[in-house]
Amino acid sequence: MTTNKSSKVTIVGSGNWGSAIAKIVGRNTKKLSEFDPTVTMYVYEEMIDGRKLTEIINEQHENVKYLPGIKLPDNVVAEPDLIKACEAADILVFVLPHQFIPKICCMLKGKIKSNAIGLSLIKGFVTSEEKGIQLVSHLIHNLLGIEVAVLMGANIANEVAKEEFCETTIGCKDSTNGLLLKKLVQSENFRVVVVDDCDTVEVCGGLKNIVACAAGFADGLGLGDNTKAAIIRLGMMEMINFVNMFYKNGNVKTFFESCGLADLITTCYGGRNRRCSEIFVKSNKSLDEIEREILNGQKLQGPLAAEEVVFMLEQKGVTQSFPLFCAVQKIFKRIIPPPMLIEMLREHPVHQDVRIKSSL
Amino acid sequence: MTTNKSSKVTIVGSGNWGSAIAKIVGRNTKKLSEFDPTVTMYVYEEMIDGRKLTEIINEQHENVKYLPGIKLPDNVVAEPDLIKACEAADILVFVLPHQFIPKICCMLKGKIKSNAIGLSLIKGFVTSEEKGIQLVSHLIHNLLGIEVAVLMGANIANEVAKEEFCETTIGCKDSTNGLLLKKLVQSENFRVVVVDDCDTVEVCGGLKNIVACAAGFADGLGLGDNTKAAIIRLGMMEMINFVNMFYKNGNVKTFFESCGLADLITTCYGGRNRRCSEIFVKSNKSLDEIEREILNGQKLQGPLAAEEVVFMLEQKGVTQSFPLFCAVQKIFKRIIPPPMLIEMLREHPVHQDVRIKSSL
Repeated sequence: MTTNKSSKVTIVGSGNWGSAIAKIVGRNTKKLSEFDPTVTMYVYEEMIDGRKLTEIINEQHENVKYLPGIKLPDNVVAEPDLIKACEAADILVFVLPHQFIPKICCMLKGKIKSNAIGLSLIKGFVTSEEKGIQLVSHLIHNLLGIEVAVLMGANIANEVAKEEFCETTIGCKDSTNGLLLKKLVQSENFRVVVVDDCDTVEVCGGLKNIVACAAGFADGLGLGDNTKAAIIRLGMMEMINFVNMFYKNGNVKTFFESCGLADLITTCYGGRNRRCSEIFVKSNKSLDEIEREILNGQKLQGPLAAEEVVFMLEQKGVTQSFPLFCAVQKIFKRIIPPPMLIEMLREHPVHQDVRIKSSL
Repeated sequence: MTTNKSSKVTIVGSGNWGSAIAKIVGRNTKKLSEFDPTVTMYVYEEMIDGRKLTEIINEQHENVKYLPGIKLPDNVVAEPDLIKACEAADILVFVLPHQFIPKICCMLKGKIKSNAIGLSLIKGFVTSEEKGIQLVSHLIHNLLGIEVAVLMGANIANEVAKEEFCETTIGCKDSTNGLLLKKLVQSENFRVVVVDDCDTVEVCGGLKNIVACAAGFADGLGLGDNTKAAIIRLGMMEMINFVNMFYKNGNVKTFFESCGLADLITTCYGGRNRRCSEIFVKSNKSLDEIEREILNGQKLQGPLAAEEVVFMLEQKGVTQSFPLFCAVQKIFKRIIPPPMLIEMLREHPVHQDVRIKSSL
């Protein structure tokens, strides 16, 4: 039911993850009065067997290319014109590869509602030459001038689309917007917790890939279960320390949310960063070769993130507090051999801790 | 080098884990002036191929029954007489199955130094009829009147004995004692962090087994990676809430230590609780049958812990805050079928959280 106050939602992106979230969002807007029922999905037009992808989606209600086999609600409408798709939106859900963000935002600048709010589902960092890494939500905010919340968690798109039970975390500074966004995306099997330290939520999604590379090295080296668990834990400690150092007002409890603990675990036991890092150790192939063979030429996110993060640590002169992040970067660069990973962790600064009378 | 101030160490127990820690402790006492170099190990005497186990250990420096293939330092001396082994000790390291604690402590009462300190390596809970669970360290403290610290972490005895890299956590209220114990057990590949909230450290070691059962159910049900990660995360949240409710002064950061995060991960991906729970779901066998077939008749710790913990929650009327712990107990009792696990978690109270402006 459309009322004056109902929010119009547009999903900017129509890949695997975008289509999975469109299924949930479409179902929710249809039944909740807070939202305009029609959800517009911006789809980069392409031809599939002689037919337009937008036409297929609007007639068959299925994204046959990126999420085949999953029906989308019929109130999700594909639109190939970016401006038309976004100009009336109150809520813009960004879910496309981060390299497209600058171009998309430049096209949207001045064409969207000034009081629209954004929700970024984009994991990973954008690199910026002078600053090391930049968060995708900050980039969108800077380019469009709107508030941008984030949604991150242990959420493999296909599992979400098949409605397997999982959790996610929304980071949103404003509680009213946070609750509205929760209503928009929560379902029976997709459970949402809202927290206010957005930066922590988003940084977790980038740093976990570095930790997963270290976990993959451990697997490649044939190290034991306890060693792998220690590596994952030390990675988590460096994630916490990194947020404390570079992003203010992070709450340590956020690391226990889906965006933290759960996503880290899944990524370190499954996931492409872990897998490719294992192969890197076992095969002696170059990262380029592995990316060609395994990822069809796509770049692996962990090594890129390690590069940028270590650059930031060097600028600030604090590499000694992050031996795991540094080891991952040095191992991929073949500056140190993989077994040196453990050497780097043995005198980890967190082992100096004596936390008595809450001194930490 | 023995000085007036050097502490005499006795290890009470000589199983797999006791022998592994004896290897590290023996090496440390030999080189550090804080300790009397000779480490006494209390060994329950038994005959191995016609020879006494204590004789074999003292002559071959190997516990051929419980840790074969690993040499012990020659300053670790096996002693079959409990009182003789313990009467001169300044530090008593307890590392034996918890069911022997009452008897051992009754025998030791009044026979040990009154200012001795204990270090318990014993995981799991002791059940007490009126109180639900009792911590092993509290039991030893109550029976012997000495201070008891604890050591817990992702520490599989055989991996520690082979000197694979891992971490552990010591919980000790007194910082001087904590640092002394750290010196006693830390090695190049066994890295120690000391914290003061002992109870949290110890409770983690018992509750993780319940969570591992839920993880095993997930594996048995063929649930996806994200679902399993969500289950582990919700288990961690219940562990935190349980400590907050029943043990005062817990520090949330302790859950990021080896005793928390690392041990939970290892237990939920490896470990007998996970494995037997998977079999429980897949085979439709009773828990008794599985314990007979897989554990040679030993009792699985997770179901026992779930039983006692749920008893405590019922007494306090707070079961609704711990749906995962309750589900594990009900599934083992066949009160609910295994797929109901997810039903129980769907409306988990932590999904109600909106943590805005640090309201949590």
